[in-house]
Amino acid sequence: MKKHILIVPGDGIGQEVTAVGKKVVEKIAAKFGHEFTYDEALIGHAAIEATGDPLPEETLVKMKASDAILFGAVGHPKYDNDPSAKVRPEQGLLKMRKELGLYANLRPIKLFDELLEASSIKPELLKGADILFFRELTGDVYFGKRERIDEGNTAYDTMIYSKYEVERIARKAFDAAMTRGKRLMSVDKANVLESSRLWREVVLEVAKDYPEVQLEHQFVDAAAMLLIKDPRKFDVVVTGNLFGDILTDEASQIAGSMGMLASASVGDSTGVYEPIHGSAHDITGKGVANPLASVLSAALMLDISFGLKAESEAIITAVDATLKAGFRTRDIADANTPADMILGTEAMGEQILSKL
Amino acid sequence: MKKHILIVPGDGIGQEVTAVGKKVVEKIAAKFGHEFTYDEALIGHAAIEATGDPLPEETLVKMKASDAILFGAVGHPKYDNDPSAKVRPEQGLLKMRKELGLYANLRPIKLFDELLEASSIKPELLKGADILFFRELTGDVYFGKRERIDEGNTAYDTMIYSKYEVERIARKAFDAAMTRGKRLMSVDKANVLESSRLWREVVLEVAKDYPEVQLEHQFVDAAAMLLIKDPRKFDVVVTGNLFGDILTDEASQIAGSMGMLASASVGDSTGVYEPIHGSAHDITGKGVANPLASVLSAALMLDISFGLKAESEAIITAVDATLKAGFRTRDIADANTPADMILGTEAMGEQILSKL
Ligand SMILES: CC(C)[C@H](C(=O)O)[C@@H](O)C(=O)O
Ligand SMILES: CC(C)[C@H](C(=O)O)[C@@H](O)C(=O)O
Repeated sequence: MKKHILIVPGDGIGQEVTAVGKKVVEKIAAKFGHEFTYDEALIGHAAIEATGDPLPEETLVKMKASDAILFGAVGHPKYDNDPSAKVRPEQGLLKMRKELGLYANLRPIKLFDELLEASSIKPELLKGADILFFRELTGDVYFGKRERIDEGNTAYDTMIYSKYEVERIARKAFDAAMTRGKRLMSVDKANVLESSRLWREVVLEVAKDYPEVQLEHQFVDAAAMLLIKDPRKFDVVVTGNLFGDILTDEASQIAGSMGMLASASVGDSTGVYEPIHGSAHDITGKGVANPLASVLSAALMLDISFGLKAESEAIITAVDATLKAGFRTRDIADANTPADMILGTEAMGEQILSKL
Repeated sequence: MKKHILIVPGDGIGQEVTAVGKKVVEKIAAKFGHEFTYDEALIGHAAIEATGDPLPEETLVKMKASDAILFGAVGHPKYDNDPSAKVRPEQGLLKMRKELGLYANLRPIKLFDELLEASSIKPELLKGADILFFRELTGDVYFGKRERIDEGNTAYDTMIYSKYEVERIARKAFDAAMTRGKRLMSVDKANVLESSRLWREVVLEVAKDYPEVQLEHQFVDAAAMLLIKDPRKFDVVVTGNLFGDILTDEASQIAGSMGMLASASVGDSTGVYEPIHGSAHDITGKGVANPLASVLSAALMLDISFGLKAESEAIITAVDATLKAGFRTRDIADANTPADMILGTEAMGEQILSKL
């Protein structure tokens, strides 16, 4: 198979982990006889430094010309205490999502058996947990109008949804539920928000086409509680952009560490595959970041964008074997991990490669 | 001390648990020689049924005439599949918060040692956790303009904050931090939202008056993750209305159960004391609801609105003794709890009363 892959490492540890993800894809191509070509492009703070623009036109052109995008992370602590900065790394990420029409963000939360002890949640509540989140990604308060008014003394953002936006993500979630446990939880705040009431109306409407799927509604506050109380009660979850952002980060604890979680953003055209974790500047450059989220993002890319199931499975098996062999990065090590089994980013990558 | 207390049980288990909370207050009054008078009023679904209005004028008048309000919960499942209902129980709650100027919602998350095993989080990560949330309660997307547009096909809500709103809640949180561990975490989504950037600006400004307090900013997604990863890292947290709603429900797992958590809503006038849990219609009328959140809300009322520290402490000591004696409601029982130690709402109340 011939495919053109764009590598977009972005900021912070995005650089370090994406390098490992790419190596894994190269190894798979060699092993399975695919012809993958690669290009690289800038986004986020890295792009601002180089061009002044968090999503340069050149990057966007390359993105649209690629068959899939392996993405790192964006963000920079420089902006943390400067809320008034006009140009910000995250603008590049949001613009990419909008421009590529990436309205569905899939975040599978699956615990590798070996990491049962790495989570802060009790192992007996976790074993077997397997959740698939569908986070809407191109609407909500992320893209509504925002403004300072009243001489700068008041600020607002607009949380907004249209029916067609809810419908298309709901259909994707119902479709996925049909291939899994046939249970779908829709999360909103319909007891307060009008946009949530529209959300719920549409989900109830779409549900009529999926009589076999058991649909449940939860308010976002209750969902945030239930997720840690009883993670095995969840199968597929569909929710808006903001609630999905919060709940999936929280759910990362179910998988032991944010460093384990991959995501796929799909929609109208090229898919983007990216770790859930951010740029993590506190550990950038130290070579300790967990590359597995990027490696598993590559696996999602092969599966979802290219339909290469066996190749995708081979990566997951290699990750599993590496964990079974006892190798850990710092974030997923526990009190019983021997010091010499705790590897840095590159060494962990080498272990995966050696098992492919 | 002479005080006039309004009891507002509201809906669902609100009725059952508030009855216990009131009995505890009566016992305290008798024991410590206070003259408390009581009245009762309707809100939520109960008020809609009786008057058509979720917050009848009569209730509001009684609220304003009282020295403190012991509150239950509002909500009804009837509205879950009817997103288009015009009159809803929650409108009564939100109007009360606004009319009484209850801009600061204090939610203390403290684990009783006896309940270390009741949580889904590993006990070794919980021991000693003690968090005080300040949730802003009269602003944000709860009170911004909301509307259907585009012939009903689009809905929006407005997430809005003004500087004075952020400043007054921030000051309360910094003040509290000064009396505790001198650490404050402010939670926002300033990498995306303009209202969050205003929030952060104001918090940074107020921080100048509290040089001793160690201030940290977290994005809401990261905060949701850190809360379960390492709850002991938290001291005081300040955040907006929506993020506070989500994070405090999530944090209830730290205390073992939502059934343990009390809250105080204070501001310009009469304070409202209320469990964090909702109306829980799935267990309503079964007599199994945990009354401790209402009992602990009564303790907060005596402390914060009346300054009666010893009386408040007496209640907490009685709760502690009841738990130490091994009594549990269903929600906080674990696999090792003998069946005859699992009590219903009233029997649990009797245990508390007997220890006062
Ligand atoms: C960096 C930030 C804007 C982004 C988001 O909120 O969507 C991130 O948290 C994510 O989840 O991809
Ligand atoms: C019932 C609901 C409107 C309310 C809220 O969201 O504020 C509740 O969840 C709470 O936390 O008091």
